[in-house]
Amino acid sequence: MAGKRALKRVQKGPSVRRTASKSASSDRRLRVAILGASGYTGLELIRILSRHPRVEITLLTSEQESGRSVGEVHPSLVGRCPLVLEHLDLLRQTERADLFFLALPNGQAMQLAPRLLVEGKKVVDLSSDFRIQDLARFRKYYGNHSAPEWVRKAVYGLCELHRAEIMKASLVANPGCYATAVTLGLGPAVKYGLVETDSLSVFAASGVSGAGRRAGEDKSFVQVNEGFHAYNPVSHRHRAEAEQELGGLAGRSVRLSFIPHLLPVTRGILATATVCPSPKKSFVDFVSAYEQSYRAEPFVRVRAIQNASPDILDVQGTNFCHISLQEDAESGRVVIFSALDNLVKGASGQAVQNMNLMCGFPETLALL
Amino acid sequence: MAGKRALKRVQKGPSVRRTASKSASSDRRLRVAILGASGYTGLELIRILSRHPRVEITLLTSEQESGRSVGEVHPSLVGRCPLVLEHLDLLRQTERADLFFLALPNGQAMQLAPRLLVEGKKVVDLSSDFRIQDLARFRKYYGNHSAPEWVRKAVYGLCELHRAEIMKASLVANPGCYATAVTLGLGPAVKYGLVETDSLSVFAASGVSGAGRRAGEDKSFVQVNEGFHAYNPVSHRHRAEAEQELGGLAGRSVRLSFIPHLLPVTRGILATATVCPSPKKSFVDFVSAYEQSYRAEPFVRVRAIQNASPDILDVQGTNFCHISLQEDAESGRVVIFSALDNLVKGASGQAVQNMNLMCGFPETLALL
Amino acid sequence: MAGKRALKRVQKGPSVRRTASKSASSDRRLRVAILGASGYTGLELIRILSRHPRVEITLLTSEQESGRSVGEVHPSLVGRCPLVLEHLDLLRQTERADLFFLALPNGQAMQLAPRLLVEGKKVVDLSSDFRIQDLARFRKYYGNHSAPEWVRKAVYGLCELHRAEIMKASLVANPGCYATAVTLGLGPAVKYGLVETDSLSVFAASGVSGAGRRAGEDKSFVQVNEGFHAYNPVSHRHRAEAEQELGGLAGRSVRLSFIPHLLPVTRGILATATVCPSPKKSFVDFVSAYEQSYRAEPFVRVRAIQNASPDILDVQGTNFCHISLQEDAESGRVVIFSALDNLVKGASGQAVQNMNLMCGFPETLALL
Amino acid sequence: MAGKRALKRVQKGPSVRRTASKSASSDRRLRVAILGASGYTGLELIRILSRHPRVEITLLTSEQESGRSVGEVHPSLVGRCPLVLEHLDLLRQTERADLFFLALPNGQAMQLAPRLLVEGKKVVDLSSDFRIQDLARFRKYYGNHSAPEWVRKAVYGLCELHRAEIMKASLVANPGCYATAVTLGLGPAVKYGLVETDSLSVFAASGVSGAGRRAGEDKSFVQVNEGFHAYNPVSHRHRAEAEQELGGLAGRSVRLSFIPHLLPVTRGILATATVCPSPKKSFVDFVSAYEQSYRAEPFVRVRAIQNASPDILDVQGTNFCHISLQEDAESGRVVIFSALDNLVKGASGQAVQNMNLMCGFPETLALL
Repeated sequence: MAGKRALKRVQKGPSVRRTASKSASSDRRLRVAILGASGYTGLELIRILSRHPRVEITLLTSEQESGRSVGEVHPSLVGRCPLVLEHLDLLRQTERADLFFLALPNGQAMQLAPRLLVEGKKVVDLSSDFRIQDLARFRKYYGNHSAPEWVRKAVYGLCELHRAEIMKASLVANPGCYATAVTLGLGPAVKYGLVETDSLSVFAASGVSGAGRRAGEDKSFVQVNEGFHAYNPVSHRHRAEAEQELGGLAGRSVRLSFIPHLLPVTRGILATATVCPSPKKSFVDFVSAYEQSYRAEPFVRVRAIQNASPDILDVQGTNFCHISLQEDAESGRVVIFSALDNLVKGASGQAVQNMNLMCGFPETLALL
Repeated sequence: MAGKRALKRVQKGPSVRRTASKSASSDRRLRVAILGASGYTGLELIRILSRHPRVEITLLTSEQESGRSVGEVHPSLVGRCPLVLEHLDLLRQTERADLFFLALPNGQAMQLAPRLLVEGKKVVDLSSDFRIQDLARFRKYYGNHSAPEWVRKAVYGLCELHRAEIMKASLVANPGCYATAVTLGLGPAVKYGLVETDSLSVFAASGVSGAGRRAGEDKSFVQVNEGFHAYNPVSHRHRAEAEQELGGLAGRSVRLSFIPHLLPVTRGILATATVCPSPKKSFVDFVSAYEQSYRAEPFVRVRAIQNASPDILDVQGTNFCHISLQEDAESGRVVIFSALDNLVKGASGQAVQNMNLMCGFPETLALL
Repeated sequence: MAGKRALKRVQKGPSVRRTASKSASSDRRLRVAILGASGYTGLELIRILSRHPRVEITLLTSEQESGRSVGEVHPSLVGRCPLVLEHLDLLRQTERADLFFLALPNGQAMQLAPRLLVEGKKVVDLSSDFRIQDLARFRKYYGNHSAPEWVRKAVYGLCELHRAEIMKASLVANPGCYATAVTLGLGPAVKYGLVETDSLSVFAASGVSGAGRRAGEDKSFVQVNEGFHAYNPVSHRHRAEAEQELGGLAGRSVRLSFIPHLLPVTRGILATATVCPSPKKSFVDFVSAYEQSYRAEPFVRVRAIQNASPDILDVQGTNFCHISLQEDAESGRVVIFSALDNLVKGASGQAVQNMNLMCGFPETLALL
Repeated sequence: MAGKRALKRVQKGPSVRRTASKSASSDRRLRVAILGASGYTGLELIRILSRHPRVEITLLTSEQESGRSVGEVHPSLVGRCPLVLEHLDLLRQTERADLFFLALPNGQAMQLAPRLLVEGKKVVDLSSDFRIQDLARFRKYYGNHSAPEWVRKAVYGLCELHRAEIMKASLVANPGCYATAVTLGLGPAVKYGLVETDSLSVFAASGVSGAGRRAGEDKSFVQVNEGFHAYNPVSHRHRAEAEQELGGLAGRSVRLSFIPHLLPVTRGILATATVCPSPKKSFVDFVSAYEQSYRAEPFVRVRAIQNASPDILDVQGTNFCHISLQEDAESGRVVIFSALDNLVKGASGQAVQNMNLMCGFPETLALL
């Protein structure tokens, strides 16, 4: 029945383009747009969505690359998507899609999303614009917000924490890559009261794609290759997100020490947290809290790894977050590792996971 | 006495081989041997010593590569050292040098060093055999020690801490690479009572050469490239060294949380420590303690770096350790970064620095 | 016996295991086995086949890793394939699958394939065992062949050259990675008589995964990282394959100069050929020959690239081969570039492409 | 005259600045300036010259980084050079040094060098400005030359070919990195008439530092890492240099096929040449020509390597060029490999080698 309705729309709809490689059987395709399709997250979105059986990409925009085909901008997508990138022109483009992925620099989504939402469109925003609920805190890290009334309506798109709200949401704030790793890594420990929340110390390391496509000497090959350093060691913006989400789980304010480092790899994040267990909490409590929290999660794996953490290679190109725990008996700490691909679970994969939830698709569709 | 004998022979002179590129003016060259010359630290020792104006390399040994020339084993040293590697045969080789660098797997130096020392030779051991003074603690990490009486006579060769003893020592235990980075990084904070010593949390990352030359799938290119993971996260052996040295500075027992990670680079270590300041100690106290501690040190630089740490590239190929400090006002911590090249300041460079001190040469000779 | 039971279950049909993400519509899944599932090509086969809608993986074997699950051996496949790797035991395993991928060291397929073929199974062999039709030439490069009678029945699985035979074949010799790049790159020039066939000079460079998973110092991170060198510069085995296939296209014997190099990357091959055009042949003839040859090919793209070749990043993780041409007016040569991913189009992707053809599936299934 | 003035000041002596680490014995230090000291070749020049016993760096200029110390601009030189970079202001700076290294973008040296030369200064230019003697050919690759009268006076600074002229030269055009590799690699074969000069086909690959420090998306880490491609495949400027020098050796015009590739490494060049031997010339003739040509050369090594080429790692950080030869009996070709470090023998090391020759210092000083 739903199929028939969709069919009608498509039949009426001469403007709907469709890629040749998709079978004719799945007729009720959601039309999706990617605004900001020439960056790394845009590329990854196209890669995933072009394999999604329930979705049709109908609009791609880019300011730098408009007029060029997907295959020209991203040669690795030759043969996967026949579209041409267009200039953003929302007045004329709003009706071209049912759901919009905003993969734009910070500050643009707060301008564009409201316009789409009032037209009944769904929005998944991959920028930071709608992630921080506390506007004072937002201002501290990012400056003024031009659409504060929409912040409250936004749902923070960490599926493992907010699945039910995401399923009903029109505007999802897709989490930051570090924030995803840290929150999934520390979440169960905080939620089940296993740790002293003033003891949370997180070291993290990310591949270079996490910093986006824009050129700069600091991202040049020669400056990065064979190197390693910390950056924004006391003021990284993703800290605010993780503190917000962990605070929500803890039921009280949480402050992290969070020190990000730049890895000479293209993609991947490893977050290494050391925590002090709460009195009378043992390592066994940690293990059972993590297993219980993530047993039913399709994209989180708690792994027992002897004398090592997960490797970012283990999650490269996947939507998984791998977590492992270690007891450090001598120092009385517990170490919690979480690894993910910053472009997939840390960005575009999670965005599609959110879309799947928002649209009633199976959550793992196109992500396994 | 042995020193005098050596001196005489040198004065007689004609048997002393000498490379053409060295000036005739510095006639009294120390004869040095490198046992274990085919590994990465051996290579680095040859590279440094072949430029040292007061030294002549007279013996190189290797089990795997004996009979081959230096240039065959290490093509990057073609033209720098004309020697051929020999099988180890200490009975016949003891008289071939005045000072011996032992760059052998753990467990061998404790067999060989005593034999050299009783013959009046000087020894710089690059393995772990003589680093841990507490034999019970040694046993826990490494097993039994076959020459415990020599452990007490060994000096831990961290020049910045033990310069005076090193100058008088016959046996120097050259520090581990991680231990050097951690001890130089945390030393002043611990020494001047600026930190809660139960709060020391160190995250460290090292290039692959730190694991030595022996092949293994875990060190294969495909397993390491584009990867990152923690290893031995609660039981790395270098932790015992750093705890010993920091304990000495603190005047009481110190326990670290120490989590090493494997970087997909050839060389370099960055140690990132987060600490809780002691009551009434401010960030300014840290800065002045570090500046004071290292102002006169030739190979430690305290750098003021805005919003980032030193990069391992900054010390690549050098004997320097770069340190910087950051105040994390929100979490109430101080972050201390230290970076060095694991093969130079973390191994062979520091070994030559020790030799310079032991032999009365200028400390920086051949190291700038 | 277990084999028979398995067979029955498949014949009865409804009990066929199936991963949740696969649609119910494609009921008669081909059962496939991968012998040698713990290496890089095995991993890549599982990755591709686990997304293939017409296939069910029913058997994975490995000598080194038997008894471990796919997720343990290849953590990046956690959640993608629930099987456990088994010891090879063909007597009991033949009935467990309809088609066998042999991803074993050279020399084993010639033992195993005949046994499978006489039982009516289809075989795609990823080793070199059945690639060279001329047994004398095979012997020169690989030694004796134990099943020469099967060599003639094997079809060389370069789909773009032998599509029709592959569709009817039971035994396909999946081409070598370099041979695929070189043959696709030079094929049209040779076929259309555009080049002096004694002028074919090919320089190629491959990522390290092309050498397989077995450890060795020559593949250690430190020996490869930041390095580049040629290997087997006058005797690489894949040369024989490319010469055989190009000879077939030319209608006469062809000899290449072929010089492979090792790139410090995980995956990717670029082959750069310089050729002398035949008399009266112009660059325009080349362009039209290539466009005509590959216009209808789903996995070959002839790209017009200004002043550069395709990059191996453009084909990373894909089954595509990208080709471009350049005229070198000053030297009177034409330069032909071809790039592919050695683990996909150069191995496992092409193997699945062959399977698709052999089994009547759409050729691109699971490969876009 | 200016030279005499400078000399006097040096003879008077006390005003000569000197770094602390240099011995007092070598009193007559040459004062050298590096114009363009913030790029990669400038960094490498400082690194080498700061260890040179006969030289004092007295002036460093940089437009981007003036006012900053060497240690700030190049943290790896902390402790090696105490100078501050200055704006270029030649009128006031000419008297500050005896010899000037010009490490500036193409087009600037032709403006500056004449002014220095008329004041009696020596100049080593690392740009392309004075490398091409044929002005028509220069124009084709680089545009107009503003100081053509000086081109003829310039000596092409490939020490192995032009040692005698360099020793008498005031203006040396330091060769391009690729041109050095190609000319040293093919030189003996061409000089001794061993090859058909219309058969010279060269593939080359270079690390990213060869392209200089300026940022650009094409040099960003994510675009280069794990990648490999050819660039300027038929029009690279260094080809003209190599053709000029090889033509000089051959006694007639030579045209190369030359295809450079970008390697995902920081430094290193490997040039792989395939050539057709002249009639009646055998591989043995090649071997003896190369051994004879380079036997006495301090920085060229002809190596016998079984089944492989030299690796760029073998020459990393050194001023050596490693060469090896392979006979390809099947294709009737000879393959000649040459490897060097593009920043050392391909730029700054060779520049210092030229300076040593120009100033009567031992040729290898500070370069071993």
